[in-house]
Amino acid sequence: MTTASTRVPATGAEARAEFRQNRLVQPTSGMAPGFVQANLAILPRDSAFEFLLFCQRNPKPCPVIEVIEAGNVEPSISAPGADIRTDIPKYRVYRNGEMTEEPLDLKSVWRDDLVSFLLGCSFSFEHALIENGIALPHWETDKGVSMFRTSIETTPAGPFSGPMVVSMRWVPQNKVVRAVQATTRFPNTHGAPVHVGDPAAIGIDDPTKPDFGDAWEPANPSDVPVFWACGVTPQAVAMASKPPLMITHAPGHMFLTDLKDEDLAII
Amino acid sequence: MTTASTRVPATGAEARAEFRQNRLVQPTSGMAPGFVQANLAILPRDSAFEFLLFCQRNPKPCPVIEVIEAGNVEPSISAPGADIRTDIPKYRVYRNGEMTEEPLDLKSVWRDDLVSFLLGCSFSFEHALIENGIALPHWETDKGVSMFRTSIETTPAGPFSGPMVVSMRWVPQNKVVRAVQATTRFPNTHGAPVHVGDPAAIGIDDPTKPDFGDAWEPANPSDVPVFWACGVTPQAVAMASKPPLMITHAPGHMFLTDLKDEDLAII
Repeated sequence: MTTASTRVPATGAEARAEFRQNRLVQPTSGMAPGFVQANLAILPRDSAFEFLLFCQRNPKPCPVIEVIEAGNVEPSISAPGADIRTDIPKYRVYRNGEMTEEPLDLKSVWRDDLVSFLLGCSFSFEHALIENGIALPHWETDKGVSMFRTSIETTPAGPFSGPMVVSMRWVPQNKVVRAVQATTRFPNTHGAPVHVGDPAAIGIDDPTKPDFGDAWEPANPSDVPVFWACGVTPQAVAMASKPPLMITHAPGHMFLTDLKDEDLAII
Repeated sequence: MTTASTRVPATGAEARAEFRQNRLVQPTSGMAPGFVQANLAILPRDSAFEFLLFCQRNPKPCPVIEVIEAGNVEPSISAPGADIRTDIPKYRVYRNGEMTEEPLDLKSVWRDDLVSFLLGCSFSFEHALIENGIALPHWETDKGVSMFRTSIETTPAGPFSGPMVVSMRWVPQNKVVRAVQATTRFPNTHGAPVHVGDPAAIGIDDPTKPDFGDAWEPANPSDVPVFWACGVTPQAVAMASKPPLMITHAPGHMFLTDLKDEDLAII
């Protein structure tokens, strides 16, 4: 048995090697800076077309980084050589919509009819916000961003439907335009905001009382609440359809790819 | 029986009404300016997931505007109220990779297991090029753009694989940067070029001898050949897999949506 590593992995590949050996079991925020991290959703082949179509119809909450077809376990586009069953620090297994296990690998639950979806996460665009001088108080702390259910309906596909979940960040008034520009560059990690300014306009009563994640007060009273589509949406929507089997990463324990943030930038 | 219409339709909806009655059977270039036109590929449900995945993996040649699920015939996102079986001027039916019919509607061949894919076409970005002062000699003539098979391989999915087909336009040297910028705005109609400058670098021997479409000489010797991913790619790739049944629009006879070009712009 190996001892726990204390070194922070510098690349996606280094991080995955640690996770594969279960030497590092913790949230991945701040690891391998500049490498794209991804949400994971695994579903049986039966529902793969309709879930992919749901993602195509809702690209802001569900930007597809890569799909691993049934019978395969290697994300050969975004992380060649990786194994999706072992290379994430912690997983969650849901049966008929209920969480039944939180394993460190998927060896005992894997089936050959499972299709794995890697979806963009907000870490890449948060890095872009910080580079543009927009402070994010939750960044590299053990707290998370605020998330809310909204009155914005996703476009359904097959059994998948439901409200869009958004993340909210307080942005100084003189940085709102820059925040829109900086995140527009990254459509594969949720892209431009879905709303700027009025929480009530998208069904949010109080922006300091999130449905998920942690609560944040504005640093200045003039700060503007800015809302981005959130990767919790596809998981929430898939879960609500109560599939016989669905597997995700444990919250905050993402898949680290070999892609760099700039590989996903469109401009 | 109605007499043939001589009026050029001004909107997508007007054009579709003409096509539905078979009052207008001609290529759609120049119709309903500013409305998004789309390529059509119809495949049985069996191969729908892998074809959608092929499109996701190859977004430049295969930008998905909308997918109509099996059992449905209405493009409810891009053209509510339309019927994909009747609202295109002319179709092509292929069986095991061979063209067997070129009907004006699909009433006699329709089956409830067919999934319809509407994919972006180059008309939207050509309009943007013209607006930016880049002349296109084929525009609104009965000739077409030059198209070439390249040495660029698409990323396969299931039975779908093969070389990328590109379209080529001669661009004045001092407009090349603008051409990249103007088309970058439209990723859903093929987006930024895949290559600028050297035809041989992507396996093209002679840019005045296209594999498909019409041949064009540069207006000035210093004009630069600029290459964009082409919507012929997914049709060629699907056809090469010899599906038992596949239906497309007849070349140049596109589906007209209610979307405006600007609806697809990302910036």
